[in-house]
This record gives sequence, C-alpha cells and structure tokens, in this order.
Amino acid sequence: MIKLTETLADYAATIRFEDLPNEVRAEAEMAFLNWMGCVLGGCREDAVNLATDLVRDTGAHPRSSVIGHGFQTDSASAAFLNCMSSAINAYDDAHLPTVAHPSGPAAAAVLAVAQTRAVTGSEVLNALALGIEVQCRIANMLVLPPSDFATGHYVNGFSGPIGVAAAVGRLLGLDDRRMAWAMGIAATQAAGSRASHGTMTAHFRAGQVARAGTIAGLLAEKGFDCSLDAIEGRNGLLANLASAADPSRALIGLGVRHEMLANTYKPYPCGIVIHPTIDACLDIRAGMSAGAEIEAVRLRVNPLVLNITGKRTPMTSLESHVSVFHWAACALVMGKAGLSETRPSCLSNPRIAACRELIEGVPDHAMQKGSAAVEVVLRDKSVLSAHVEHARGSQARKMTHAELDKKFNGQAKSLLDAPQVETLRKACRTVAGYSNVGQEMGLVLEKLGL
Amino acid sequence: MIKLTETLADYAATIRFEDLPNEVRAEAEMAFLNWMGCVLGGCREDAVNLATDLVRDTGAHPRSSVIGHGFQTDSASAAFLNCMSSAINAYDDAHLPTVAHPSGPAAAAVLAVAQTRAVTGSEVLNALALGIEVQCRIANMLVLPPSDFATGHYVNGFSGPIGVAAAVGRLLGLDDRRMAWAMGIAATQAAGSRASHGTMTAHFRAGQVARAGTIAGLLAEKGFDCSLDAIEGRNGLLANLASAADPSRALIGLGVRHEMLANTYKPYPCGIVIHPTIDACLDIRAGMSAGAEIEAVRLRVNPLVLNITGKRTPMTSLESHVSVFHWAACALVMGKAGLSETRPSCLSNPRIAACRELIEGVPDHAMQKGSAAVEVVLRDKSVLSAHVEHARGSQARKMTHAELDKKFNGQAKSLLDAPQVETLRKACRTVAGYSNVGQEMGLVLEKLGL
Repeated sequence: MIKLTETLADYAATIRFEDLPNEVRAEAEMAFLNWMGCVLGGCREDAVNLATDLVRDTGAHPRSSVIGHGFQTDSASAAFLNCMSSAINAYDDAHLPTVAHPSGPAAAAVLAVAQTRAVTGSEVLNALALGIEVQCRIANMLVLPPSDFATGHYVNGFSGPIGVAAAVGRLLGLDDRRMAWAMGIAATQAAGSRASHGTMTAHFRAGQVARAGTIAGLLAEKGFDCSLDAIEGRNGLLANLASAADPSRALIGLGVRHEMLANTYKPYPCGIVIHPTIDACLDIRAGMSAGAEIEAVRLRVNPLVLNITGKRTPMTSLESHVSVFHWAACALVMGKAGLSETRPSCLSNPRIAACRELIEGVPDHAMQKGSAAVEVVLRDKSVLSAHVEHARGSQARKMTHAELDKKFNGQAKSLLDAPQVETLRKACRTVAGYSNVGQEMGLVLEKLGL
Repeated sequence: MIKLTETLADYAATIRFEDLPNEVRAEAEMAFLNWMGCVLGGCREDAVNLATDLVRDTGAHPRSSVIGHGFQTDSASAAFLNCMSSAINAYDDAHLPTVAHPSGPAAAAVLAVAQTRAVTGSEVLNALALGIEVQCRIANMLVLPPSDFATGHYVNGFSGPIGVAAAVGRLLGLDDRRMAWAMGIAATQAAGSRASHGTMTAHFRAGQVARAGTIAGLLAEKGFDCSLDAIEGRNGLLANLASAADPSRALIGLGVRHEMLANTYKPYPCGIVIHPTIDACLDIRAGMSAGAEIEAVRLRVNPLVLNITGKRTPMTSLESHVSVFHWAACALVMGKAGLSETRPSCLSNPRIAACRELIEGVPDHAMQKGSAAVEVVLRDKSVLSAHVEHARGSQARKMTHAELDKKFNGQAKSLLDAPQVETLRKACRTVAGYSNVGQEMGLVLEKLGL
C-alpha cells in the first residue's frame, strides 16, 4: 500500500525554493502575476460583492487584504474572497489534463497567510509552487485513467484543498506529521459538483477551496489531529470517490518532474475546453469576406466540452463561461473573445444570439480535450473549416511574458490608472526578492487603495 | 424527473410550527434539551479547545455564544464550535437507518442564528424540527437501497449541510427560490469520509456541517444564487455520489410522515451501531457470578459495525467511539458504559485491555444494524449468551423524559452546580414559550458563565 498522504506530506514539509529548477521558479512568479491580474479583473463582480458583504458582516481581526475592497479580515476569509475574485471570470489558469485551476486557491491562501507571518518572497513562491504542484498531482490521480471519478465532480474542489493545505502548511513550517494532518483535514473537506456551474455558487466553490486549505493548515499547526492516510486509506477520499484510481499516479517523479509546468494561463475568459473552438472560429473569421453570412456551424469536440460547457443560451456573465456556443458565435460574428463578450449587452446582442442557434455541437471521442474542428457553411454554400490541435495559451503554445503583461494590464486598468497598474505589476514581478511579503505587498495594496 | 430540491425548498419555506403534530413538536423540544446537554458534556474536550482557539484568533463581531467558553463570535463559527462540542463524545443522537446524527448541526446553527435575529421559541423549534427532518430524508435517500452511496462517506457530511441550510433559511424567512439556492449552496459543500473517524477531524467534520448550512442560508439571503436542482440535477450530488439512489425516497409522505421521529438519543457515548452489543454484554454481565473469568467472547453483528467501529485497541477517547471491542469489554468487565469509559485510565486499564483481546467480531449480513448477539465462554466452559433485537435508546425503546434529564444532568454537572443545571434544563425545556430565543437563551447562558 502506497503511503500517499505521508509521502506528499514529507515532500511538502521539506521542499525549498532553492531546490526548484529555474523554470519552476519562473512559473511560480508568472502564476502569481497572472493571479493578481485576475483578482483585480473579478473583485467587483456581483457574487464577490455579496460574499464580501457576508465577510464584512461577520467581522474579524484585520490581518489579510480583501483585494479591491479596501479592508482586511482574517486570513481564511481573505483567501476565500480573493480566490473567488480570481476565479469569477473563468480567466485564471487551467491544467488541461484535468481541467483544474490550481493557482487561484494556492495564491490567495499563500498571500493571505503571508500577511499574518514574517515570510520571505522565496518562501511565498515556494509555497505557491508547492500548492499548485500538489493540486495538479491529486487532480491527475483523480481524473486520469484508470480512475472512475465522476465527471460531474468539480475537480478543484477535490484536488484543491489538499494542495492549499500543503502550501499553507509549508508557510507555517509544519513538520511532516502535522503536514499530513493538514492534508487530511483538507481531504475531508473535498467537495463540489458541476451542477452549479454558471451560477455564483460555482465561484463560491473556488473560494471555499482556499478557505478549506487555509483552515486545515491553521488547525494542524495547533495540533488538531487527523489520520495519516486520509487520502488513500480505508474509507478515505480515493476509496469513496475514485476506487479505481491509482494512488502512485500522484507521486510519479515527485521532486524531479514538475507537473505545475503543465499548468497554463487563460487567454479567454471561459472554460478552458472552449478555447480550441474559439481559436478555430477566430481562424475562420479571419478568412471570411466582409458581409459573408453564416448559415450553419458545426463544432466537433471532445464529449466533455458539451457536457460541461453545453449551455446554449447564456443569460448571465457567469453562464457565458460554460457556453461553447456563445464563444463560437462571438469569435465568428465579432472576431473577439474577451471580458466584454461576457457582458449582458453581448449576451443579448441579436446577431450573437442568432448565430448561437445555428451551431451544432458534435461530441467526438477521438477529439482531444485541447483540440477542436469547426466547419462553417456560408449562405453561398461555401464551406470554411479549421482544425486546432493545440489552443492558444495551451502548453504547446504558452502565453508569453508580453501576453501575460497585457492580460494583467487589461484587467487591472478597471480599478487603477496606468502608473498604478505599472506599480502593482512590478510589485508582483519582484516578489521573489521581498524579505517580508505580507508587509511589503500589504503596503503596495494599501497605497493603491485596494 | 422529480424536482427534489425545489420540492424540499418549497416545504422548508412554508412549514409552520402550528402545522406539526404534537409528537413532532415534543420531539423538537427533546432534541434541543439533549443537544444542549451534549454541548456541555463536550465543550471542554481538547479538539474543541483547539478549534475554539482558532476562532478566537480569527475574531468576529460578538453575536452568538460559544457555549462553555464564555465568549461570543459570528453565527457560523458559533454553530461550528457548538456542534463540535455536542458531537465530540459521540453521545448526541442517531437516526439508526442511516447512522446519521442530525440534531447537533441543526440545533447549533439554529441557536447561533437565533442570537442574531428576533425569533420566537416556536420559530426556533420549527426550524430545528425542519433541519432534522430534511437531514434524515436526504440521508435515507443517500444510504438506503437502491442507493450505491459509498459506505466510507461520512453520512452527516452529505445530508447535514442541506438540512441545516433549510433550518437556517426558515429562520431567515427565505422565499422558496432563495431556499432552493441555500440548499444548493449547502449541497455543494457536502463532504467527509470515515477515514478520520477516531481523530479530532471526525468532529471537525460535524462542526463543518453546521457552518456549511449556516453560510449557505446567509449567502442565499443576500441573493447569492445557485442552480435549482443541485441535489438531483445533471452533475449534481446524486449523479456524482449515488447515481442509483431514488430521489423520490426523500419525499415520501413529506408533511405527513415525520422521519425525525425515527431519530433517537444515545444512552452510551459511542457509535450507535455499538449500542446493541453493549446491551447484550450488560445483560450477560448481570447474569455472571462474582469472580467468573471470561475466556472468549464472540460478537455477531452487522458487517457495518466492524467496518466503522472495528478498532481493536483505542488509544484515545476519540478512538474509543469507534471500538466495539472496547465497549463490549467495559460492559462485561465493569458493567458500565458511560463517559468515564472513554477516559485514558479506562482505555489502558489492564483488565479491559485483556478482555478486548478475547473478543472475536463476526460479521453477519442477516443481523440488523440495531441488533447484536453475544456469546461469552467462561473459564469453567459454561456459555452465557444474549441476543438484543432493539438496543436501549433505539426507536423501539426510546429514552424517557426522566432518562434524558438524567443524561443532561450528568453532562451539565461538569461545568455547573446543581441549581445551575436545573436553571439551564428548565430554560431548554421551555424554549417553546420564548418570544425572543436569542436574547433569552443568551441571557441564561451569560448568567451561568457559559
């Protein structure tokens, strides 16, 4: 029997930033920057405002920043809200093999806890990389063959708390036993279904991942105990939810192969499995002559795409995240796929609405999750087609530093003027050098009125 | 397709205390009294102290009492801690068909929220009865045939949040749509495994049920939305965790047949499935002559008993809750099965330890969860045997008012003197008549230094 929880806990309790290869360290920096941009892009959405109201009503000692709302609260609640902000536009990141979104929960928890302790930039980035790494590994084990994990589970809700607990536990300096407890307390909070996708609750779920892992770390630090095999043991997470899963899958190349390198940043604010369809439609649109009229559209996609993003007529911004039809229409009709395409005015735009109705989605098991084939029939019966093997932003076509900066600026400018955007971007890019991240980032956020 | 979430939500949003039969109203009063006694019995246990420390560190506007710790915090955290207190000795209640423990989460959440609003005694008892009712119904649906819900899931963690959300939602006066959202937000927090049974985390899980349902109600009140079919819909709770379950099971006789009447209060502080074995061993002990020496013991029990309470050698009080061997030994050797039998001195008592080793557990599918057969072979080769069809405290042999009072007094006296115990018992017994429960119970608790 593989001691999965204890092995991961041992790794988590000892890994140091200095031990990580340069590319992993660089990835942690990019993940942090991308995350902060998404927080600013999402922090004023309705769902975040409502959840923030509840946290304000509750009250707490002011310790960790609720970014974009100008106040501080306890670390678990700040982690909850900041993660929700970064998730709400479905614009954050994605680990395509599992469609998990690991940086939001880890970054939100790590920054919130960093504001309560004196920790350095390399400790913060180490914890962030660790949190992402553990989440991706748990997600791989849960989702990939031979696992029988139900497709309807919200993957992050199950992989996320454990990774966040590892990240927070590392920041708190837990020993290996307490680290295993933290991961166990987190595993027992693994939860979430896709039934609420397209509603505020989908993003509550994301925030809860950050809260669950933070609480798990803080309790374990106090000596709150748990079994040492909560993930793989009898009556544990795997036995209950994915009994066919292979626990060794989570340990392949641990410390040598870095699964977080398979995590990517999203160029479009919607479900990652929609992205290849958007690219294909943008390609086709580029080849359409002005005034060409669309008669029919056929999307050939992996069955998962229609299962989790098959909403035909999105009525809200949140529903747009799970409508492959909407994004195909936007790309074909407007040649765009950004935050403005999630707004009510775009959702109800008659040209977009008409185009959505012309689209047929064909599930094809032979099609990879990261690929799509689109065929458009025009009024004159001519046919345009495009096949995308790897979407923009995917591991094969990762976003560049310049693209990430542009994405950051685009989101940050809704709250900040240009020099302020520059200040925050620079602060994020230089976290590695901070001697006390909580204090220094806290000051930057305060100075910017965030 | 049965609209399960909406049907339950509609019921929850409209049921009134006046509509409930007398026996249900009386049951709600007993549940409240039994719960408060268990809170006092458990509030000073190590796990509760550690979790209380974390809540104190966090801070909050002081609104709801953390019973036994003399301070107030936010309602969700108070619900969390008070539920944990009532659960920690495994002495609270049990719905035997599902081995769920519904009153703790509902009562803790309802009292905590009552301290933040002006609500009457009948509103509080109505919400409590509703919370228990919904939990038992969801648990029935999840656990009973034809469901394929994994045995290793912690049932309360899945049925509890939804019931608590209904109870809190009722107290907040949610309309049917917001009630359905609340139940959906709760369903998406359904979680927990039996892997941590016997550790502090098992009781963290209980507390989290109260927190999850409270948060769900408070968010829905603010207009935080969710899908309306989070329990039975596509990719929802049932689809993901119990696809063979019959959703109509949760609705059988809704409003007419009251499943909460199948809930019972525990006479022994350990897993409910251990109780018939304790009774059988106490019967045998009563027939043993002084000085008789035990050579071998054989327990014939439902397989679930050994699966969830099969710990041979409990090392901590919490582990004693899941050791059928320990309790059989205590009943045979000491003729007792109370809180003192969970203490370290009893766990390490050489006579008890020796007896535990003599016990064989035989799983028998023909044996009901609520029954047990015990055979004891004495040194002189004589054989004593007992068969218990229905354990003491079970639905067929419910605890009387006098027994409940005695149980309450036994737990409350660890913190209060006799007149104070009487004051609190009376306050609990008369909740129905209160015009503002939060204020009146708050004053009682404060006066008693709780």
